[in-house]
Parts: sequence; structure tokens; C-alpha cells
Amino acid sequence: MKPLKEMSVDELKDLHQQLSNQYQNIKDLHLQLNMARGKPDFSQVQLSMPLLDTINSHYDFSTKKDYLNYGILDGIDEAKRLFSQMLETTPEHIIVYGNSSLTIMFDQISRGYTHGYLGNTPWCRLDKVKFLCPVPGYDRHFAITEHFGIEMIPISMDDNGPDMDLVEKYVNHDDSVKGIWCVPQYANPSGITYSDEVVQRFAHLKPAAKDFRIFWDNAYIIHHLYDKHDHVMNILEACEEAGNPDLVFEFCSTSKVTFPGAGVAAMATSLDNKKDTLKHLTIQSIGHDKLNQLRHAEYFPNMDSLKQHMQKQAELLRPKFEMVLDIFEEELAPLQIGKWSHPLGGYFITFESLENCASQIVQKCKEAGVILTDAGATFPYGKDPDDSTIRIAPSFPPLDELKQATELFVLCVKLVSVEKLLSL
Amino acid sequence: MKPLKEMSVDELKDLHQQLSNQYQNIKDLHLQLNMARGKPDFSQVQLSMPLLDTINSHYDFSTKKDYLNYGILDGIDEAKRLFSQMLETTPEHIIVYGNSSLTIMFDQISRGYTHGYLGNTPWCRLDKVKFLCPVPGYDRHFAITEHFGIEMIPISMDDNGPDMDLVEKYVNHDDSVKGIWCVPQYANPSGITYSDEVVQRFAHLKPAAKDFRIFWDNAYIIHHLYDKHDHVMNILEACEEAGNPDLVFEFCSTSKVTFPGAGVAAMATSLDNKKDTLKHLTIQSIGHDKLNQLRHAEYFPNMDSLKQHMQKQAELLRPKFEMVLDIFEEELAPLQIGKWSHPLGGYFITFESLENCASQIVQKCKEAGVILTDAGATFPYGKDPDDSTIRIAPSFPPLDELKQATELFVLCVKLVSVEKLLSL
Repeated sequence: MKPLKEMSVDELKDLHQQLSNQYQNIKDLHLQLNMARGKPDFSQVQLSMPLLDTINSHYDFSTKKDYLNYGILDGIDEAKRLFSQMLETTPEHIIVYGNSSLTIMFDQISRGYTHGYLGNTPWCRLDKVKFLCPVPGYDRHFAITEHFGIEMIPISMDDNGPDMDLVEKYVNHDDSVKGIWCVPQYANPSGITYSDEVVQRFAHLKPAAKDFRIFWDNAYIIHHLYDKHDHVMNILEACEEAGNPDLVFEFCSTSKVTFPGAGVAAMATSLDNKKDTLKHLTIQSIGHDKLNQLRHAEYFPNMDSLKQHMQKQAELLRPKFEMVLDIFEEELAPLQIGKWSHPLGGYFITFESLENCASQIVQKCKEAGVILTDAGATFPYGKDPDDSTIRIAPSFPPLDELKQATELFVLCVKLVSVEKLLSL
Repeated sequence: MKPLKEMSVDELKDLHQQLSNQYQNIKDLHLQLNMARGKPDFSQVQLSMPLLDTINSHYDFSTKKDYLNYGILDGIDEAKRLFSQMLETTPEHIIVYGNSSLTIMFDQISRGYTHGYLGNTPWCRLDKVKFLCPVPGYDRHFAITEHFGIEMIPISMDDNGPDMDLVEKYVNHDDSVKGIWCVPQYANPSGITYSDEVVQRFAHLKPAAKDFRIFWDNAYIIHHLYDKHDHVMNILEACEEAGNPDLVFEFCSTSKVTFPGAGVAAMATSLDNKKDTLKHLTIQSIGHDKLNQLRHAEYFPNMDSLKQHMQKQAELLRPKFEMVLDIFEEELAPLQIGKWSHPLGGYFITFESLENCASQIVQKCKEAGVILTDAGATFPYGKDPDDSTIRIAPSFPPLDELKQATELFVLCVKLVSVEKLLSL
């Protein structure tokens, strides 16, 4: 195969006929496959089954009676220690929450909106509140800010992270800019990890708004696919050294470590931010589920046990990522009708189609029974200006289904690309 | 002993000297006791230890793989069934949440404030929002409304519930009144249960505000101390029959059934309210901890198992309530210096001192090492106009400590009452 753009109209028409036939044949299979969400599959989840045995009726609670009752708002010591190791900080910076880091982020946005941070004006009293949104990004982040009527400003990204010139321009000069969403390591969905320089420039921001915060969603901090892996610089430390200790809320969870939905989530932040957050939390909560915190702390007594566990996860995930990438390489590279990421960790592959093709590719996949993340979902308000970014989530389907789904996907990419070129 | 009010000044002075000596002796013991919070004690919590074994690594998840992943926002079927039986409704009215009903209530208030119910104006956009607060009531309810700057209006209660003439006056004529806090069975702290007539009058309210809601915190719905027990009328059903289906948010949890802090909480409401709540929740959460929901559903396969469990709880609690009441009866009844409740369930005894004595009684107890709930805590803004209501929480201390604490309490009641009479 040669690059599509080098083909004559007749060649393209012939190819279109072939591809249409293939598409019809696959459609007749009535597939029901899903590559939409970054969900661990059952085999990954099964890795953590022994965690369920760590706390049972014979567990010795004699020195931990408090864990069975109300209270301990910032989490049990063992869980604070676990997260402080994951996030490379000290336990006093940690609040351990319930089962979802998304809920912590929602809560922090909601608190900014209703009460404000560290004595600043609640956002609901302001005419305009804006958030910066590096794109492509995580649709659930954007959904939260949109839910609170916060104006979202897309910020482009390259392999080093967000466009920091633009970030500085907004943050340092517009006091209605109150936050930025970041997934700094194995970004959702591009897979890139912010460079040290980018992290340092974040730490040295001089925000016009005192209540500007970096929402540092370190969702994939230990979610490496290979031994050789990325390691994003420690932002809490960098902010502290830059004299900006209160600049960041950092989030993480065990949702993609143990059980999605039955894991434990945490926030790390400055001592002042923590105190401010706890003043709110003490009204909101009687304490989070300390038994589930204890289960996790027992199952991961140290970082080594956690790393070994994540290597097992990687062994299950790696073949899926590699299969998708191999098919892309074989089927799409020669045609030059797209680019894609080669992540060293995280949960996603980003595919960039020719311009104005993504929606149709997703639609064609859907019509043949393969659900992808909606085109545009990785942009604020669901609007991808180039209509070219598609998020591929290879983790959930079993390998054979993933193969079928990917083959359909590349077929749809080809078909839509040919149609696009023919219509030019 | 005769009633204090019938004593001469000399008799009172003699008594004061005796009581002061006794108080000094107890003070010298350096007690460290706590009757402040309605916390189950360790023996109660231990009743539920087998619950920790219901889900282990050998559990057969083959038909329940979804429970180990993200999703199922309104809770797993088994848990919805459990709560629908507790709350005498059908599963489609239930949302099962995480570990705390307080957090659900906070969320609902917060949602009213930021987004509004069923399309109504968010409260943060209004000049004035008011809540009715039957008194004495639950301090954590009042803390939530105060946190959101909502004006709280105290509503007096008798043995049948809140003063419904006053409730109707406010709710039916003032559209800034957006809610009322109710603990309808074994009220915190008075122990009373709302009569059928009161529940019917609630159901037939004609609120001036479309977004007025009854916050029906059925915290003690199955928390009976005796076989002969109260049973509050089903408000959801009553509201539906009255043509007011959206009037109520009903809350409950297993915090005082299994593990405080590691239980499961739920809300029951109309289908429209549920849909409206889920639109918000889908932005906020990736689903609550379904494994803990499953643990509870496995441990309580039916209402009989739940009732039997609560009978065991009652056997542990009853002696504590009865000991406190016996000491009150023996030591305080003859002196006629207070009244107290005789609850058939729940977690509290309410003590009513002579006027303007409560703060000093609590303070004197504190100085001798016994922590009580702050005087005034059961009123909005911590202000008890008569300074007479004290909430006694007998559940947490072991029986011998509870005896010491109660004896100190009655001593302080006598001492402060004598001082009050002498100062008149």
C-alpha cells in the first residue's frame, strides 16, 4: 500500500469499494464491543482478590478500635503512609478519602464555588470563573467544571506538556482564572508525561488570583507499562521550593491498582490547604471508610509490594496496547492517514485522524457494534476544533475482542479517510 | 430528700456544702470519661465482625463482575433491596451511597445551593434561604445549614413531633423556607417519634417554595431498645398519596447497625427527585463502594436477619439506658430539679435542667473529667434560649464508666441547681 494521498481518484474509488464490502461483512457479524472507557478488565481486578482477605473477623483490632468507629477525618495513619510514599511526600500532607478521586476533585471545585479557598471569595459570587483545560484531556474533569458553569479554555499540549507560555499568560494576568486540570504523567488520553521544565514553570507561576489552584490528577503515577518508565517531577516539592506551597491539589487513587469503585483515594496538598479542606470536611463527613483504608494498607505494607503488584497489572495490559499499536503500524502507517501515541503507561492510546474525520470514524464503528469514546469528548464542551482526536481504551475487552474491535477501527479509519479524500 | 424548691436557705446552704465536698472528691479522681457522642461501643461493633467474612477472595463473582468495576451509580440491586425493605418502599426509589448518610444530606443541601432541585433557582442566587429546625435537634444537621449560610428557625417540639401549626405557617407562606430537618423516629436527642397526624400534616403541606424539601433523617428506624417499640408512619407513601411525591428526601444508614464509618448509607425519594439527583451524581462519582454494599447485603439477606441483629444491639444498649434512667430517678426525681426522656429507641436521653443551668452543669462535669455534648448544641447556632437542654449519650462508655459519669452528672445537676436557687 502507498500513502492514500498519493493515490489517484480511480485507485481511491477501487479501494473504497473494497473497504465498503469489508465493512458490510463485519457489520453482519453484529459485534458488541466497547473500547470507550479506561476500565481494568476482570483479570486485572482478580489480581487483587487476596486484598479481600486482609481484614476478616479474626483481625486483631485491639489497638485499632477507633478504626471501627466514627472519626479520623484525614484517614488512618497506615493509609496516609501508603499514599505519602506513592506521592513522595510526608503523611501530614495527605487526606485519605473514600473510593473515588473524582469525587475529591468534584468536592474541591464545589468548595471553591460555595465557600472559596483560604478565605477567598466563593466563585458563585463572581461574575466569571475560568479554568484552563490542556487538550486533549479527561472528559470527566471537563464535565465537573462545565457542571459549575465555569468557562473552559483549551490549552494545546505537546510532548512536554501544556503550552506554558499560554498558561502563564492566562494565570499570571487574568484573576478570573481559578484553576487548571492536569494529568501530568501518562496524560489522559495523550499518554505524555510533563517535562521537568514544565513542572518547574507550573511551580513558579505568579497567579493573578490568590485562589488559583493546579488540579494535579496524578491518576497514573505508578501505572507503568514497561520497566523503563516516565517519572513526573514532584510538584508539591517544586511548589514549596518556589515559595508557592498552596498552589496545588494533587489527587490519586487505587481505583486502577486494586478495585475500581472499591479502592481508596487521597489528596496531597500544603498544610494550610489541608487545614482549610478539613474545616469543610468536618461538616460534610463522619470520616471515610477506614476499614477499606486498612485493607489497602495491609495489602501494600510497602512500596515494593505495590510495585510488584503494578508489574502484574502491566503484564496484563502490555499485550493489549502492543496489539493495538501493531495493527495501527501495519494497517495505517503505510497509508499515512493518522498518527497515534506510544505511551509507556496509563490507560489510553490517542489516535489523530486526518482533519474532520474523527466523528465519522466513531459513528461508523458504532454502527458496526464497536463503542468508542465520543469524538470530541477529550475537549471542553465536546468540541474538537479539528475533529481528529479519538481516545482508544484498550484495557477492558479481552484480547480476542480487542483484536476484532481494532480491526474494525482501522477499517473505519481507512474508509472515512478515503471518503474524505474523494470529497475534496 | 424533699424537692429543692421547698428547702429553706439554710437547708440549701448545708446541702451545697455537702455537694461541694463530694464534687471535690470526685474531681480528685481525675476521671476521663465521655458521654458526648452517639457512638456505638466496641462490644456493639464486634457483633458485626462476621460481616467482614462475607466477601473474601473465594467469593463467586462470576455473575457479578460489574460489582468489581466502575459504575452502577444508584447501587447494586441487593443493597437497593435491603434498604427498600428497611424504608418500606420499592428499590426504584432508592439510591445506595457510600459510608455516611450525613454526607448524602450535605450533598443534597450543597446541590440545592449550587444547582437547585428539579430546575428551581440555585439557593446561592437567592438573597435569603431559610430552614426550619425542630428543637432540640441534631447538631450536625444544623452545622450543615449554618455552613451554607442558611438562616435557621427553631421550631418547638412536643411528644408528637414539631409544632405543625408553626411549620405550616412558615412552609405554606414563606417561599424562602426551603427545608426542614427531621429525625422522625427516636428523635435526636428527645427520643420522641412523630405521630401519624404529624406525618400526615407534613405530607399535606402546600409549600410556597416549589423546592421545599423535608429532610427526613430516619437514622433510628430499626434502632429499638425494646420489643414494644415505635414505628413512624411511612412518609414517602403519605406524600405520594397526598399528591406531594417530591416533598421528601429520606435518609438512613447502617452506621449504627454494623460499623460506624464503614457502613452503607442510602436515600429514598420520588422517581423524579432520584433522576434529578443522579444527574448531579453522575458528574460527581464513578459509583460508590459496591463491595461494601455487597458485604452488607450478604450479611442481611432479609429483614429477619437484620431484626435479630438489632435485638442483639438492643441487649447491649438497654442496660446502659436503664442505668442512667435509674440513677436519674433515684437521685434527681425526689428533688424535682429536672425532667428527662424515656426513649424506646435511638441513642440519646434528653435531660432538661432548671432554667439557665445547662451550661454550668456541662462545664462542671467537664472540670471533673466528664465530657458531655456542649450545652446549646441541640439548638441552631448553639443557642438554647432556656439554657436547660442537655443531650446524654449513654452508648459509648463501658457500663462501669457510664455509672461513674452519670453519678458525677447528677451531682453537678444538684450542685448547679442549689447554686441557682441560692442566687435567686
